[in-house]
Amino acid sequence: MSRVAIIGAGPSGLAMLRAFEAARRAGTEVPELVCFEKQSDWGGQWNYSWRTGLDQYGEPVHSSMYRNLWSNGPKEGLEFADYSFDEHFGRPTSSYPPRPALWDYIAGRVAKSDVREDIRFETAVRWVEYDDETGRFSVTSQHLATGEDVTEDFDHVVVASGHFSYPNFPEVPGIETFHGPVMHAHDFRGAEGLRDKHVLVIGSSYSAEDIGSQAYKMGAASVTASYRTSPMGYDWPEGFTERPAVERFEGDVAHFADGTEKRVDAVILCTGYLHKYPFLPEVLALNSPNNVYPDGLYKGIVWQDNPKLYYIGAQDQWFTFNMFDAQAWFARDLILGRTPMPDAAERAESIAQWRERFAAIPNASAEIRFQGDYVRDLIDLTDYPAFDVDGVVEIFQQWKRDKAGDIMGYRDYTYTSVMTGTESVKHHTAWLAELDDSLERYLGDGDAE
Amino acid sequence: MSRVAIIGAGPSGLAMLRAFEAARRAGTEVPELVCFEKQSDWGGQWNYSWRTGLDQYGEPVHSSMYRNLWSNGPKEGLEFADYSFDEHFGRPTSSYPPRPALWDYIAGRVAKSDVREDIRFETAVRWVEYDDETGRFSVTSQHLATGEDVTEDFDHVVVASGHFSYPNFPEVPGIETFHGPVMHAHDFRGAEGLRDKHVLVIGSSYSAEDIGSQAYKMGAASVTASYRTSPMGYDWPEGFTERPAVERFEGDVAHFADGTEKRVDAVILCTGYLHKYPFLPEVLALNSPNNVYPDGLYKGIVWQDNPKLYYIGAQDQWFTFNMFDAQAWFARDLILGRTPMPDAAERAESIAQWRERFAAIPNASAEIRFQGDYVRDLIDLTDYPAFDVDGVVEIFQQWKRDKAGDIMGYRDYTYTSVMTGTESVKHHTAWLAELDDSLERYLGDGDAE
Repeated sequence: MSRVAIIGAGPSGLAMLRAFEAARRAGTEVPELVCFEKQSDWGGQWNYSWRTGLDQYGEPVHSSMYRNLWSNGPKEGLEFADYSFDEHFGRPTSSYPPRPALWDYIAGRVAKSDVREDIRFETAVRWVEYDDETGRFSVTSQHLATGEDVTEDFDHVVVASGHFSYPNFPEVPGIETFHGPVMHAHDFRGAEGLRDKHVLVIGSSYSAEDIGSQAYKMGAASVTASYRTSPMGYDWPEGFTERPAVERFEGDVAHFADGTEKRVDAVILCTGYLHKYPFLPEVLALNSPNNVYPDGLYKGIVWQDNPKLYYIGAQDQWFTFNMFDAQAWFARDLILGRTPMPDAAERAESIAQWRERFAAIPNASAEIRFQGDYVRDLIDLTDYPAFDVDGVVEIFQQWKRDKAGDIMGYRDYTYTSVMTGTESVKHHTAWLAELDDSLERYLGDGDAE
Repeated sequence: MSRVAIIGAGPSGLAMLRAFEAARRAGTEVPELVCFEKQSDWGGQWNYSWRTGLDQYGEPVHSSMYRNLWSNGPKEGLEFADYSFDEHFGRPTSSYPPRPALWDYIAGRVAKSDVREDIRFETAVRWVEYDDETGRFSVTSQHLATGEDVTEDFDHVVVASGHFSYPNFPEVPGIETFHGPVMHAHDFRGAEGLRDKHVLVIGSSYSAEDIGSQAYKMGAASVTASYRTSPMGYDWPEGFTERPAVERFEGDVAHFADGTEKRVDAVILCTGYLHKYPFLPEVLALNSPNNVYPDGLYKGIVWQDNPKLYYIGAQDQWFTFNMFDAQAWFARDLILGRTPMPDAAERAESIAQWRERFAAIPNASAEIRFQGDYVRDLIDLTDYPAFDVDGVVEIFQQWKRDKAGDIMGYRDYTYTSVMTGTESVKHHTAWLAELDDSLERYLGDGDAE
């Protein structure tokens, strides 16, 4: 029997396990699967840790999430086609679940199968090599609690370790003279301590938007967001302003590109993440900016230079969970041989075509449609349950309009599932006033306990 | 020509390079040396970074040092026997240099040779394996800026990567409900931001002592140090108290084992470090508590199960730089074949004898003498310049008395070098009032600029 290594048991790795599980249940003989997960539980990003930097075993902490993180996109955009929110929660819920509710949903799907048996928890992959002679990979992994290491051969390797865990942390001149806390968004764990503080977030993408909003919500004295290229441009509330790039720090004073300055108490670098795969040799490692069609991946999945290596979830993401599923189902069919692997020239041709379309994307709305087309293309090639991808694209477009109109209130809006037709309910408490991110609170009626 | 891999270019790795350099200058043919250093400069711990957690390449930050860190032991205890402070600075200086001055001293010695050419900076070792058939190690390393990896064979490997970089970070019940900053000492970068704050340091060793003192110096509203076994017991100033173990947090309130509680604003875990070698298989990796005679190392250096593998600086340390030198000189002579490698039984016998002595050490003063004996034993076996080890032992004993008598002022005391007979001078400014840790300030006359 062939063997498949899956690196990571977050949403992407679990999608891969689920894809094989679906085939197994349908009577197909599937390869031996070994999923390596360095954390002690599944869920990847969604498996919150209060730790920062390095974990109890000295490994880089994986999750970049924080207290009071609520989904920043509607759950109707990320719903699994084979496991709806209705099926999981048993009734309609609101559209922007807090982290524990989404973790529960992800885990709920796989908890109903045997896939957990295929996961080696607290096990880090140290090094992967491909042997041209045998045509197999050797994977060296280490059990973190015991230090025990093992090198094993696999026919296929699926990289599902994510790319929102290793901070991109640029040097800002003089930052070493700033005396307050300086951290990357990756190490941010909650804004309660920012009450009455002047907070600077450096960046203009999701992390800056949400961490800035968290600081505002928790009573920061002011929030300043600094952008390199263009401001986020939302209708920010009083006390929340955008300024151009921080050019330098002089002690606790940030100097901006427009000549203005501001004394701040805390700095959070929301400067993105690196594609980093410290367990992969250069010939196997994706090295890409964060975008919706990284080069070198056939169908966004298959490593062009070695089509026995797959990446799940390596794209920048509008679509998430259901896109990982679409990718995993397609990767599964290639591994099972159900779908023939095109030759290198054909794959290159496909990559070039998609990359050409990708390069011509004019704006975010078009990028959402592009990714919708990408997801549809994959689903059409597999037996993953078809769903109204255009409907999801429209949900994302509406979400963007809702954000533009009401950045501090958009999470109170509702959307309708394309999977079940269920319209979500309004959360009992406005997001800006909601200080409890527990699953119980999400599912409760909002009465004080 | 045989090849030696040296992992790390901090004080221990540089000692190893210096040892070979000394032999080379004396006309001996030495092996090809490759020193792998993941940072962009040498100095290890002493190469300060404002970064915390992960560095610009997503690698764990190595240095645990912080702004305004001054040596916590007199420089007369750590002076190189072959490169005195007088030779480096050209005149007497005070006994407790700030970090940049010690970095300058470490770097100054090696800057005068060609050893830098043997160092591959920004290069992380990913995996080491020993091949029983060839009798050589294969070392896979990766250049961090380019991702380029290479696997090479070596006859010997010297592990000099230190053991004060990977935090030991225990779980404290309820710590996830604490809203202020929680960090390990490894990620502490300065106490200026703790002014007017109620600070809790968990631990009772050097980190707790010094970070607590830094917080006091920088104007913390209070400092509480929590011990597991016994208090540090110094004559702390007003506002600095010791309490037994933190049993749990409830939000921002720490509850101690004696039933008392305290609301605090910041928590720093000074709970020590792990021996962690993520690039080593279990059969080669030292797995030891932090102590002065880890098991499994002949002469505290040679890996008993594979005597082609060496550790420099793996001990807990009273002696530091000159001990690393003594170890490096001895390892060098073994590698060069100048000193024959005893057989396994003889090495085991030696380890057992030292471990027996180690187990009988009654207190810290005896431990210092024990380590002095250890250093002397090594020096006697090599051509490292002999020095008055007992004199250094006495300096450490005096240092302990000075600390016991004046915990906030002991760094203002002076000592006499056993290497040069030079008595140190008093720093122009009392440590408690000195807020500038620059080399210029250390060497200046204390006038305002």
